[in-house]
Amino acid sequence: MATIDLNSDMGEGFGRWELGDDEAMLGVVTSANIACGFHAGDPEGLGRTVEAAHRRGVVIGAHPAYRDLAGFGRRYVDATPAELRADVIYQVGALQGLARSVGATVHYVKAHGALYNTIAHDELHASAVLAAVKDVDPSLVVLGLAGSPLLDKAREAGLAVCAEAFADRAYTSGGELVSRREPGAVLHDPDVVAERMVRLVESGTIEAIDGSAVRVRADSICVHSDSPGAVAMARQVRSALARAGVGLRAFAGPAG
Amino acid sequence: MATIDLNSDMGEGFGRWELGDDEAMLGVVTSANIACGFHAGDPEGLGRTVEAAHRRGVVIGAHPAYRDLAGFGRRYVDATPAELRADVIYQVGALQGLARSVGATVHYVKAHGALYNTIAHDELHASAVLAAVKDVDPSLVVLGLAGSPLLDKAREAGLAVCAEAFADRAYTSGGELVSRREPGAVLHDPDVVAERMVRLVESGTIEAIDGSAVRVRADSICVHSDSPGAVAMARQVRSALARAGVGLRAFAGPAG
Amino acid sequence: MATIDLNSDMGEGFGRWELGDDEAMLGVVTSANIACGFHAGDPEGLGRTVEAAHRRGVVIGAHPAYRDLAGFGRRYVDATPAELRADVIYQVGALQGLARSVGATVHYVKAHGALYNTIAHDELHASAVLAAVKDVDPSLVVLGLAGSPLLDKAREAGLAVCAEAFADRAYTSGGELVSRREPGAVLHDPDVVAERMVRLVESGTIEAIDGSAVRVRADSICVHSDSPGAVAMARQVRSALARAGVGLRAFAGPAG
Amino acid sequence: MATIDLNSDMGEGFGRWELGDDEAMLGVVTSANIACGFHAGDPEGLGRTVEAAHRRGVVIGAHPAYRDLAGFGRRYVDATPAELRADVIYQVGALQGLARSVGATVHYVKAHGALYNTIAHDELHASAVLAAVKDVDPSLVVLGLAGSPLLDKAREAGLAVCAEAFADRAYTSGGELVSRREPGAVLHDPDVVAERMVRLVESGTIEAIDGSAVRVRADSICVHSDSPGAVAMARQVRSALARAGVGLRAFAGPAG
Repeated sequence: MATIDLNSDMGEGFGRWELGDDEAMLGVVTSANIACGFHAGDPEGLGRTVEAAHRRGVVIGAHPAYRDLAGFGRRYVDATPAELRADVIYQVGALQGLARSVGATVHYVKAHGALYNTIAHDELHASAVLAAVKDVDPSLVVLGLAGSPLLDKAREAGLAVCAEAFADRAYTSGGELVSRREPGAVLHDPDVVAERMVRLVESGTIEAIDGSAVRVRADSICVHSDSPGAVAMARQVRSALARAGVGLRAFAGPAG
Repeated sequence: MATIDLNSDMGEGFGRWELGDDEAMLGVVTSANIACGFHAGDPEGLGRTVEAAHRRGVVIGAHPAYRDLAGFGRRYVDATPAELRADVIYQVGALQGLARSVGATVHYVKAHGALYNTIAHDELHASAVLAAVKDVDPSLVVLGLAGSPLLDKAREAGLAVCAEAFADRAYTSGGELVSRREPGAVLHDPDVVAERMVRLVESGTIEAIDGSAVRVRADSICVHSDSPGAVAMARQVRSALARAGVGLRAFAGPAG
Repeated sequence: MATIDLNSDMGEGFGRWELGDDEAMLGVVTSANIACGFHAGDPEGLGRTVEAAHRRGVVIGAHPAYRDLAGFGRRYVDATPAELRADVIYQVGALQGLARSVGATVHYVKAHGALYNTIAHDELHASAVLAAVKDVDPSLVVLGLAGSPLLDKAREAGLAVCAEAFADRAYTSGGELVSRREPGAVLHDPDVVAERMVRLVESGTIEAIDGSAVRVRADSICVHSDSPGAVAMARQVRSALARAGVGLRAFAGPAG
Repeated sequence: MATIDLNSDMGEGFGRWELGDDEAMLGVVTSANIACGFHAGDPEGLGRTVEAAHRRGVVIGAHPAYRDLAGFGRRYVDATPAELRADVIYQVGALQGLARSVGATVHYVKAHGALYNTIAHDELHASAVLAAVKDVDPSLVVLGLAGSPLLDKAREAGLAVCAEAFADRAYTSGGELVSRREPGAVLHDPDVVAERMVRLVESGTIEAIDGSAVRVRADSICVHSDSPGAVAMARQVRSALARAGVGLRAFAGPAG
C-alpha cells in the first residue's frame, strides 16, 4: 500500500493570542511542525501542543524561524550564519526540553516562513541551519521543499531528509511553487486539492499551472493550519487519500 | 582536604552588549551559571560561553530567569505557575541544546535575580521551578541559597541540591542575607571577603553583621561577575582558599 | 438629558494575531482605549485602529501597560517608579505619534490590566503613572476605577479625571469590584448587564452582590471587547441606554 | 566663518547594558541621534539621554531602526512598507513624548544601521521612512548620507534635509563610502581623520581611497560613539575644526 505523511504547523499562538485549531489538526495529520518561540509560541502554549501531539501519537517536529515575533517569521532577516546557527540550536533545544518534559521526542526540523523560503536556495543560511541541526542532534530529519537544493545539501551533510509538497499551492512546469504574487498561486477548492494530492501519491506528478504534468517526489504533504477552512481542507485531503487506498504514515519517529 | 565550589554568572551580554569578562572568570571559578536568554544572553553569545566553559573544564549550569530582558530579570513578574514552569523548561532546554552542540552537558540549575530571590521563599514559584527541573531532566542539581526552604523542597522532590553562600554579602545573625537596601549589605574589601570565605569553609560559620558567628552550610560560594573589580575579587577569594589549603572542586559534573 | 460614555479596549492584536472586532466595537462605543505596544499592538495595527477611531469620531485614549507582551500585561511587574514613568511616557508618546500621523489626537490615558489594578491602590506605581501623564501632556484625562484613590491623586496632581464602572462586573457592598476569583464576579446575561447600567446612570447606584444598593459615581462605562459575545453585549448596553433616554457622549475630546 | 555640525549616536544602551559614553559625547557634538527602542534604548535610559542633551543645548534627533534588538538594528529586515512606515512613526512619536516630558523638542530624524544603509538606495523603504517623517511631523529634518538619492527624495517630498559625511570612513572616487568589507574602509588615526574633516569643510572635498579628490557636500559630520577611542577621536575632530577657524553649529533646532 502506498503511504504518505501529512504535516501541518502548530503551536502558533503567543500568550493571549491563539491561531489555528491545533486539537482538530492533530486529529488529521501525522506530523506536527511545532513553533519554537521566535516567530510564535510561548513556552506554556508550546508545552500544551507538544503534550497533545504526543498523546495522540502525532510525530513532533521543531519549526524554528528567524527572530521575528512582530512579523511572524515571514520577513527575511539578514542574520549572520553564526547568529542563525545558534538561533536554530536554541529553538530546537528549547522544544526538545518541552518534549522531554512530557516523555516525547523531537524527530525532525522544518524551517518556518521566510527562513524556509530562504534556505531552499540561499547557500549561507542553508548551511547555517544544517550545521545547527547536525550539531544539536544529527538524528533529526530535515523536512524541506521537494526538489530544493536544501535537501541535497542536507544529504551531503549526512542528515536524513524528507521532501514535501504543498497541498494547496500551484506548481510551475519546472516543479517550483508558483509565487504567491501570481494569480492562481493558492488553490481554494478542497475537492481539487484532495484530488491533486491523490494523483501526487499515485503517480508522482502534479498538474502544473500550464496544464502539464510535473514530477514531484514527495514523502509528505503540507496542509495549512491557520487559514479559515484549514481543518476542513486537511480533512478532505485525508479522506480522499484514504478512499484512494493511500495509507497515512509519519516519515519519522517510531512509526517512521 | 576540604573542598568548595566557586560559581559565577556568565553569558550575560545580549547582541551588541557585553557584560562582565567571561573568559577571565572562567579561569577562576569551577561552575558557570550561564544565562538562558530571558534576562540576558543571545544564542550566539551563549553558545560561545558554553563552548568556552566546556573547553576549560568549568561545569555548566543553566541560569533561567523571569521573562524580563528590559529589567535584566531583576523584577518580580507575577507569572502563573504553569507559565513559569514552561518558561524554565524552555530556557533549560535551549541551553542544553547549545551545550549538546559542543559536546557539553548542563549539570545544574540556578535561578537568576528576582526568580532566585522569590523561590527562596515563595511556595508557588518554587514548586513551578522544581517541577520544571524535574520534568526536563531529574539529574540536574538545584543550586540555591544556603538555609532556604527551596533546598528542602527540592530534596523532597527527589532532586540533588547544592547550597551556596555569597562571598560579598553581609549575613544577619539568623543566617539570612542582609537586604541590599540596608547599609553594609555588600562588602567591597577583597581581603575581608576572602578571609570570610576561608572561615566559612574551615568552620562552617560567617561573622554576621552584628558580630555574632552564624552557621552557614555551603557547598559553593557565589562570586559576582558583573561589577567593576569582580574578577579581582574572585581571584582573591580563590587565592585565599588555596593558601588556606582548601581545594576547589565543582559540586556537580564529572568532577563533582 | 443624562449622558454617559462607553469605553472599550482596542488595537489588541499583535502582528499576525488578531483579537476582538475593533471595527464593530467602534460602532458602539464613544471612547477607544488603544493599546500602545507593550502588552499588545504592533505599530501598523495600532495605526489602523487609531485611523478607524478617528474616522468614526470615537475619542482616542492611550492604553499603556507593563512591558509584558507574553503575559498580555496581565502580570504585575515590579518595575522601579523611574522605569514605569518612562515606559508610560514612551507608550503614550508613540500613540500620540500615530494619532498625529492621521490628524487625530490622544485625549486620555487608561492603564491596562495589571497596571490598571495596581495603580488603583499602589502609591508608588500610581505616582509614577501620574507623573508620566503630567509630564508628557497635562491636558490628558486620566480614566480610572470609580472610587479608587488613583482618581483623587490625579486630581491633586492637577489632572482631569474620569471615573468608570464595569458593565459586566459584580460589585461589593463597599463599591469595589468582586474579585474575579469569587463566584459571580463576572456577569454574562446581556439583559441584566444592560439593565444595571441604565440604573447606574439614572440613580447612581448598582445592586451589589449582597443585594444592597451601592453608590457608584461613574462618567464612563467599560464594555469588554475581547470575549466571545463582547460586541453583542456592548450593543445591548448601548440600546438599553438609548431606550432609557440616556445620551452617549464621550467624556473627553472635542465632544467631551 | 564656515560652520559645520557634528552628530553622534546616543542612548544605545538597553536596561542593564551600557554602550558608549553619552555624557562625554554630549560635550563634543552639536546634534544627538538618540535611539528609539527598536535597536537599542529602554525608555528610562532614553529619557535620561534626552534630558542630558537638552540640558547641554545639544539638538535632539530621533534615530529609528528596524525592529531588531538582538541584532542592534544592523540586520536588514524585509518589512513591508506599511509596517516600516508605522514602525518609524511609533519610534519617533515615542522619542517626541520623552522629549516633551523634559520640555525638549525632536528636530530631525536619522535612520540607524541597516535601515540607514537600505534607504540610501532602496526605493520602497526610503519612501516608507519619508512618509513616516512627513506624517508624524513635517517640520523634522531628514539627516542622510551626502550624495544619496534619499536626500533628493526627501526634498521632493517637501522635507528639509541635511547631508552628512563620516569622519572615519574612506570614500571611493565616486563619493561613496568604501564598504566595510574592504581593507582601509575605516580610518583609525585621529590626526588623519581630523585633518580630512577640516579639508572637507574648507574645500568641500575628501581625499578618496585612490588618492583623488572627491567632492562631498556635507552639512554635518558623523563621529562614532561606541568604539574604544570614540570620544578621543570626536574631540580631536572638534579641536582641529576649531583651530582651523570652523565654527560648530547644529543644522537644526533653535541654533540651526
